Amino acid sequence: MTRFVKGHGTENDFVLLPDADGALDLTDERVQRLCDRRAGIGGDGVLRVVRTAADPAASAMAGDAEWFMDYRNADGSAVEMCGNGIRVFARFLVDEGWAEPGELPIATRDGVKSVRLDRSGDVTVDMGPATLPGTARTVRVGKTSLAAVEVDVGNPHAVVFVDDLAAAGELRSAPEVAPAFPDGVNVEFAVRRGPGHLAMRVHERGVGETRSCGTGACAVMVAAALQDTGDAGVGQGEPRAYVVDVPGGRLTVNRLTDGHLELTGPAVLVAEGTVSAALWEGRTEATAASLA
Amino acid sequence: MTRFVKGHGTENDFVLLPDADGALDLTDERVQRLCDRRAGIGGDGVLRVVRTAADPAASAMAGDAEWFMDYRNADGSAVEMCGNGIRVFARFLVDEGWAEPGELPIATRDGVKSVRLDRSGDVTVDMGPATLPGTARTVRVGKTSLAAVEVDVGNPHAVVFVDDLAAAGELRSAPEVAPAFPDGVNVEFAVRRGPGHLAMRVHERGVGETRSCGTGACAVMVAAALQDTGDAGVGQGEPRAYVVDVPGGRLTVNRLTDGHLELTGPAVLVAEGTVSAALWEGRTEATAASLA
Repeated sequence: MTRFVKGHGTENDFVLLPDADGALDLTDERVQRLCDRRAGIGGDGVLRVVRTAADPAASAMAGDAEWFMDYRNADGSAVEMCGNGIRVFARFLVDEGWAEPGELPIATRDGVKSVRLDRSGDVTVDMGPATLPGTARTVRVGKTSLAAVEVDVGNPHAVVFVDDLAAAGELRSAPEVAPAFPDGVNVEFAVRRGPGHLAMRVHERGVGETRSCGTGACAVMVAAALQDTGDAGVGQGEPRAYVVDVPGGRLTVNRLTDGHLELTGPAVLVAEGTVSAALWEGRTEATAASLA
Repeated sequence: MTRFVKGHGTENDFVLLPDADGALDLTDERVQRLCDRRAGIGGDGVLRVVRTAADPAASAMAGDAEWFMDYRNADGSAVEMCGNGIRVFARFLVDEGWAEPGELPIATRDGVKSVRLDRSGDVTVDMGPATLPGTARTVRVGKTSLAAVEVDVGNPHAVVFVDDLAAAGELRSAPEVAPAFPDGVNVEFAVRRGPGHLAMRVHERGVGETRSCGTGACAVMVAAALQDTGDAGVGQGEPRAYVVDVPGGRLTVNRLTDGHLELTGPAVLVAEGTVSAALWEGRTEATAASLA
């Protein structure tokens, strides 16, 4: 029987599969079945928890991190990195007793990331520095085009400050960005709630509106810091912290002296158990399943 | 720690809570948290599995049925009966060893229902008879109004035969029914796939389009039998069986000689485990959770 844990960070939710020795045969179809919100367990993706040394995709990092986050999107495709996912991943490692609280290196397809956490409470991840490509872009909101700040946090973002988040309307279809990004872009609509306090909605490319986006919160923080101080870029800016409210909860983004962005927020494990053989093997139609 | 099982019938999905002795304090808020598809486990509702004798709401039925299906909608409200839910409920009882396969009486808020199942395979429930109130009604589809057959299966349905299910369009908003039902109505759009073979989409009142609806499948079957033979009402019609495809899978509806409708289809248990204290107690914001 395959063990699983379900958890979320600001409602970005995941099915975790503990697989220390890399024994699981995690096919695309199995990921799709696990992530199905009605016929399966449900999640934005799967986080397989495997020892770095036990996975060929990560063994080169075995000297730097004991654990590898094998993150798959709900469609089965491999993902490099996820700021909410890695915080849930780290919370699992400490809850399970597989890692000690404190500074914890975790291997991802985007290299080794540093996570910091206690036995309970919020989890912080170093998201690295952001860059400001500087191309002038606009995002259409209703009948007007607003200036967007382009921010790269490993993936591309276009941040637009608006007067009212509701005015961003339905974000199921991608907002119009000009000039367009050839591979698409994540678009954040942001408002200020007070000094050092932002709120945002996000349209993730290829997905639609989501409850939270870790890199999006970082991008919004950088765009706000740029407006506030002009020193938001990479390098030696003064340390700054902003609270960023997302639909699924509250995140905090700290910019350190070296320009790295630290993302902090809740990481909650809501259930654990075993996947039925019927779901794992795909016997979900017209055949009743035993949990055995 | 609170044990749970997740299961579905044609993608109508449920969180089951085994609670033989009626010890759980299942508040509306707990149901809402369990059913939350991102911050919880996720489901259309909760099925609490309790001995009839152990629940004041059901103890009058204790002589007729050992188990009571305490069904709550995702918002926490109590529900009388659900054709897909009771099949999943029965599958759990047999898998768990709490009931033997065969004919199984199950207490619901709508009285004692009879379910039939083997150790594996599809599950059948007696949905009782349907009635045809006979009021002439129309449902608007695009620019035209089509005649609807009103069918009562304990709850009200308006069945419309169309040429193409896709033409029913987006069913997030309620289709226009005239004359309107004061408390709303479930609307089924149906097509014929062949002799004794139907397919449908359904808009459930207060919910929107769903993947499946057990009473809706019964209503579509009755409307088709009425067209085919004119003898679809209650009473002594000839036994008839129709396959009814729904977006979430395949159901079969049999009308027996006495007019009772039997609903048959898959009931799949996909996972089991324990709910974290954080989710059960509602510590899901800004505080990380231990599974302990």
